[in-house]
Amino acid sequence: MTDAGLRAEVLAIGDEIVHGQIADTNSGYIAGLLEPLGVDVQRFTTVSDDPDELESAIREACARSKLVIATGGLGPTEDDRTRDAAAACAGDELVFDQHVWDGIAERFKRVSRRLSASNRRQAERPASARVLENDWGTAPGFAVRIGDCEFFAFPGVPRELKPMLDQHLLPWVHEHSGQRAMAFARLQLIGPSESVLGEKLADLMHEHRNPRVGITASGGVLSVRIAAVGDSHDQAEAMCEETAELVRPIVRKWLVCEGAANLPEQCGARLLEHGVTMATAESCTGGMVGSLLTDLPGISASYLGGYVTYTGAAKTRDLGVPSDVIESHGEVSEEVTRAMVEGLIERTGADLGISVSGVAGPSGGTEEKPVGLVCFGLYAFGEIRTWASRIPPIDRGFIRRRAAAEAFSAVIRALDARP
Amino acid sequence: MTDAGLRAEVLAIGDEIVHGQIADTNSGYIAGLLEPLGVDVQRFTTVSDDPDELESAIREACARSKLVIATGGLGPTEDDRTRDAAAACAGDELVFDQHVWDGIAERFKRVSRRLSASNRRQAERPASARVLENDWGTAPGFAVRIGDCEFFAFPGVPRELKPMLDQHLLPWVHEHSGQRAMAFARLQLIGPSESVLGEKLADLMHEHRNPRVGITASGGVLSVRIAAVGDSHDQAEAMCEETAELVRPIVRKWLVCEGAANLPEQCGARLLEHGVTMATAESCTGGMVGSLLTDLPGISASYLGGYVTYTGAAKTRDLGVPSDVIESHGEVSEEVTRAMVEGLIERTGADLGISVSGVAGPSGGTEEKPVGLVCFGLYAFGEIRTWASRIPPIDRGFIRRRAAAEAFSAVIRALDARP
Repeated sequence: MTDAGLRAEVLAIGDEIVHGQIADTNSGYIAGLLEPLGVDVQRFTTVSDDPDELESAIREACARSKLVIATGGLGPTEDDRTRDAAAACAGDELVFDQHVWDGIAERFKRVSRRLSASNRRQAERPASARVLENDWGTAPGFAVRIGDCEFFAFPGVPRELKPMLDQHLLPWVHEHSGQRAMAFARLQLIGPSESVLGEKLADLMHEHRNPRVGITASGGVLSVRIAAVGDSHDQAEAMCEETAELVRPIVRKWLVCEGAANLPEQCGARLLEHGVTMATAESCTGGMVGSLLTDLPGISASYLGGYVTYTGAAKTRDLGVPSDVIESHGEVSEEVTRAMVEGLIERTGADLGISVSGVAGPSGGTEEKPVGLVCFGLYAFGEIRTWASRIPPIDRGFIRRRAAAEAFSAVIRALDARP
Repeated sequence: MTDAGLRAEVLAIGDEIVHGQIADTNSGYIAGLLEPLGVDVQRFTTVSDDPDELESAIREACARSKLVIATGGLGPTEDDRTRDAAAACAGDELVFDQHVWDGIAERFKRVSRRLSASNRRQAERPASARVLENDWGTAPGFAVRIGDCEFFAFPGVPRELKPMLDQHLLPWVHEHSGQRAMAFARLQLIGPSESVLGEKLADLMHEHRNPRVGITASGGVLSVRIAAVGDSHDQAEAMCEETAELVRPIVRKWLVCEGAANLPEQCGARLLEHGVTMATAESCTGGMVGSLLTDLPGISASYLGGYVTYTGAAKTRDLGVPSDVIESHGEVSEEVTRAMVEGLIERTGADLGISVSGVAGPSGGTEEKPVGLVCFGLYAFGEIRTWASRIPPIDRGFIRRRAAAEAFSAVIRALDARP
């Protein structure tokens, strides 16, 4: 997408970020906002409050890009130096803006706070800059020309930054981005390794292809991401879909669902949309499936509850799994996950139920039942199915996350396959 | 510590980061690790997979700094280009390393996965680089000299990265940062806001103090971190303890425990050590307490199981909470969390039980029971205690994480207070 036109960079300013004390979430937010507009974000820089460091980071970014968006360093204290550094880069003096100062004073009066002398710094700006009004906080931002680059400075506080981006940055981008549009698609898969998938998709993953195709792994799920740049949103969408049509037959057997939402969100949305109820019986995942599902507001309409039966005794006590079934087949067996899901449905009366029991490790594995073996039971609309998966035993956390993802993928498939 | 010498930068590599699709948490982690060692981290750069962009980002960082740590871009696919870019910057050819290849093949065999031709890329390295073994994943990292700078390349996956930093980066830093020893302490608190805590500790948080005192917030818990630099480890430890002695009386009422392990780990370790059993009854946390507890290997010896009773009906069905108690007091009430924990102990016979029911939002709040109100019930060694907390309603995720942390803190305190 390098040819898409407007090249941009994002700058986050502050000692507290480069010292690892707080995380910069603004840069990713800005990139996510700009990319669909066809802006080509190639780099983020996070820089300390050191004046020389800050000035050279701004100068370098503005030399590489047509658009640089900076956040932070606009506060009233000594170590807020974005104004000074930008003025130096633009070859400007800093000027005191009486209109800005009147606005700050008025705001302080409204919230009954006392203005201090240091707030005067917040009314300064590079002489040639335009002021970007801030209706959500004390100090405005500014935009100034630095060489061939438009440099925007915004406050770092997300609740001030976000509405200011909508108000000041997006109109400028719309005017200068050459009207290119972007569209995205995401196919979510359970099963293949990243390298096997990469090989299968190698022909589509060329660097200069448009739409671009990439792979990311997260929470036990592999995603094929497709990003298209077109002259209009409709065209970009169509290009995306054309590439998705090439990907689908290659990944068919692993494909769980499409779209940006994660598996628990996709599962929850389907449950609520279809008015279907669900319950969970978890052993090795220990409550993770329930926890992920209840991240979604409003899910109590569908989720009838769960049992964390982490021991054999709990499986018998809470789900009525006969102890002789556990004894003869072992806790990690399809016989046990079948009995778990039977007991679960009997108890809750849910339309859908999922049970999970596995060897999460690091110890407890045997030759017959190695670490990574996870058994599942799915009850869906009157029918029970059980299966066993061999999850790569990368570590305990991976096995558990991947087992939870597989539970969600089974429920999503059952919902999508419903007549 | 700017005068401490070793200037460093951190580089995060990947389209998915500069496109705003995933957040880079590695750079902050690395900075947090290096700063107490007297390393002067001045800049983070996040860069796309574009080869020219990546090469110039590495070249520039290495020209500015003595130490550059890069994460990401070491995978097996076409868009993993850190190896190529580093080789170009070092003026090296890429070479195939048979020893590395044997290690990758051996690992794949162990986890029963099929090696693909593309994995061969992961056995390549710049000719003059040294290989950094990776015992936690497929591909090793490498370190190579680029001009006057030591350039380290690590995988981007946090669970591989973190132990590799300890194994490969820290020894190099110790050797090159002037032979000073460090010690750390951490006090974990539940209760205060970060700004209130910051005010109380303001006198200890001066930038040039040694030991340095800082505050971090994570998963609903606030930590006071103390880092001392001394001439020997014993001296640094003593300095740390001296500062901890100043902090303790200030934070006494919020203090849950000390040490690096997170609350679920601290809780699990105490349960196993004392041979105490525990069970959980969760409403608004939806299984999160059980899931966090069962992250710990071997916890099945102590954890007798859990109930995710997300609806009133489930609370009655699984824990015997009388429906008239729910009707008269509401699902979020101390009367209900008392009945939940009573039913839990009756059912499981555990030594310790915790129940949680709250308004996680965003909707469902009332004037009397606003979003963020969470009620708890604790059974410990024969006694029941209930209480209500007003958690700041930052968002649903925060309220749930903070409620789970409060559940663990109550159990930890009960275990520590046991005669």
